[in-house]
Amino acid sequence: MSACTLAGLGEDALVRRLMNKVPSNADVLTGAGDDCAVVKSLGKGWLQLLKTDCVVEDVHFTRGTRPQRVGWKALARAVSDIASMGGTPDHALVTLLAPPERRVADMVQLYAGLRKCARKFSINIIGGETSQSPVFAVVISLTGRVKAAHCVRRDGAKAGDVIFVTGWLGGSRRGHHLDFVPRIAEGQWLAANFKPHAMMDLSDGLAKDLPRMAQASDVGFVIQKGSLPRNKNCTAEQAWSDGEDHELLMAVSPRMSGKLESAWLGRFRSTRLTRIGCFVPKGRGCAPSFTAKSWEHFAS
Amino acid sequence: MSACTLAGLGEDALVRRLMNKVPSNADVLTGAGDDCAVVKSLGKGWLQLLKTDCVVEDVHFTRGTRPQRVGWKALARAVSDIASMGGTPDHALVTLLAPPERRVADMVQLYAGLRKCARKFSINIIGGETSQSPVFAVVISLTGRVKAAHCVRRDGAKAGDVIFVTGWLGGSRRGHHLDFVPRIAEGQWLAANFKPHAMMDLSDGLAKDLPRMAQASDVGFVIQKGSLPRNKNCTAEQAWSDGEDHELLMAVSPRMSGKLESAWLGRFRSTRLTRIGCFVPKGRGCAPSFTAKSWEHFAS
Repeated sequence: MSACTLAGLGEDALVRRLMNKVPSNADVLTGAGDDCAVVKSLGKGWLQLLKTDCVVEDVHFTRGTRPQRVGWKALARAVSDIASMGGTPDHALVTLLAPPERRVADMVQLYAGLRKCARKFSINIIGGETSQSPVFAVVISLTGRVKAAHCVRRDGAKAGDVIFVTGWLGGSRRGHHLDFVPRIAEGQWLAANFKPHAMMDLSDGLAKDLPRMAQASDVGFVIQKGSLPRNKNCTAEQAWSDGEDHELLMAVSPRMSGKLESAWLGRFRSTRLTRIGCFVPKGRGCAPSFTAKSWEHFAS
Repeated sequence: MSACTLAGLGEDALVRRLMNKVPSNADVLTGAGDDCAVVKSLGKGWLQLLKTDCVVEDVHFTRGTRPQRVGWKALARAVSDIASMGGTPDHALVTLLAPPERRVADMVQLYAGLRKCARKFSINIIGGETSQSPVFAVVISLTGRVKAAHCVRRDGAKAGDVIFVTGWLGGSRRGHHLDFVPRIAEGQWLAANFKPHAMMDLSDGLAKDLPRMAQASDVGFVIQKGSLPRNKNCTAEQAWSDGEDHELLMAVSPRMSGKLESAWLGRFRSTRLTRIGCFVPKGRGCAPSFTAKSWEHFAS
C-alpha cells in the first residue's frame, strides 16, 4: 500500500500528521492523542472533557443491525472515553448522515437506543445536525467533567507499574460491541480512590491500545499471556487482539496494587479486575508472541 | 415522496420527531432548534455554546473543490452559528470520514483550511476522530461562550420589531459558500450593545430561515422585496432563496433600530446592515411572491 493514501499511512500516523501545528492555547491541557481532550473551561477545580466519535455502516456495524443497537453503541463509545479519564458525561450532540431514501422509522429506533444510553448515564441530548449522505453514519460529540485532581491521562505509566484490565476480553463481534456498558462507575471510583498513573479504554484491543499507552508514557511492557481475562470460547490471542471490548486498561503503582485488588472486590462484585503484566523501562519490553504480523509496528 | 423516508419527511419535521423525549435537565437552557445549544457549564455569568455541523462531498461541496476551501467552510459554518448567539468560539473537534484510497495530501490540505479558519477566530483544534467511509465528509464540534446577559436566541422576535440582515445575499454557489467570513465581531457587538430580540445565521437562505425565526417567536413577517441587499448579478429572488449566505438575521425593537443604524455605520464600514421588513402579529404576515412553490410550507 502506498503511504500516499490514508489506507497506506494508517490512522495513528495520519492523526500525528494532521494535528501538526494546529492552533492550541494554554486552556488546552490535553489535545489529540488521549481518549478525550481536556480543557480549562469550567469553574475552579474542574476540567472539561471533550470527545467526538463516529460509527459508520459497514465499518462499525453491519447493514442488518437493529438501529436501536447502533444508537446505543454510538453514544456508549464516547461515554467509554469519558470513563477512561475518570470523568462524568454531560451533554451530547448527534450528527446523523443518512441516504434520503432511508426509513424515518429506522432513525426513530436509532434515537431510542441513543436515549436509552443517555438515560443510563444521565446525559442530556441537546441537539445536533442531519445531512443527506450516500452512507449511514452517526457522529457523537460529548462533553464531560472531571475534578482536576482526579483526571487520569494515558501518558503517566511508569516502569514497575502493574497493568490491570477490567472485565473480560475478546469475541466482541459476537454482539458485545453493540451492547457493552461503559465503565463510568469503575473509572470514577478508580480515579477518586486509587488515581492510576495512566488509564485508557480498550477500543482497538490490547494489541493496539497497550502499545499506545506504553509509547505515550515512554515505557515498555511485559504481558503474562495466560493471565488475560478471556470471554467464553475465546483464545488468549482473541483476548489480545479482537478489540471493541471497551474495558479499562490502567497502570497502578506496585505499592497500591494489592490494596486496589482487595478494595475492588468489596466494591464491584460482578466486574472482574485482572493483573495482566507490568510496565518496564523502554526497550526492555517483550511482546506476546501470538502473531508476529499484528505486532511489528509496535515493538516497544 | 413518502413521509416514511427522510426525503419525504424533510429536515425540520425529522428533527422535531427525533428530539421528542430526549433526556435534558435544568443545565440545558436551549436544546435542539436554535443555532447552538446553550448550557450552564461555565463559571457564574457565562453560558457555554455547543454546536455540531457537517459538510459532505457532493452535498455541501463538489468533488473537485480544493480541500483547503472545504476545511475553511467546514469550520466557518459552525463559527457562524456561534456568531449568531453573540458568542466567542473556543475549542473544535474534527471528525474526518474518508475512503481509504483518498490521498493523504488532500487531508493535509483540508487541515490547512481548518487551521486558517481556527487562527482567524482564535479557536483551538483539540483533536477528533478519523474513520474510513465510502463518502468524504467532515464533521465539526465546536464549543463557545457568551456572557449570560448577551446571549441571543432565535425565538424572541416581537410583532413590531424591525428585521435587519448583515451583508449581501444570493449567489453563494459561485464561491461565497466556500470562503465566507463568519460575522463573529458583528454578532458580539450587536449582542453587547443592542441586544437584538432574536438573531440567527442565514445558512439555508431567508426563504427558509426567516419563517423559522418567525415560527420560533410565534409571529408573522412582512418583507420589502425591493430592499433585499443583493449580491452583484443576483435577482431579489436569489437573495431571498439561494442560501449559504451565512449573514446574520435579526429582530430589533423599532425604538432601537435608528440608533443601531447610526452606530453600525461608525463601527462596520465595509459590512452593510439592511432593514428588510418587520415582524407582525401571527397570521398577519405576507410572504414575498417570487415562487409560490418554495413558499407553501412556510405560510406564517
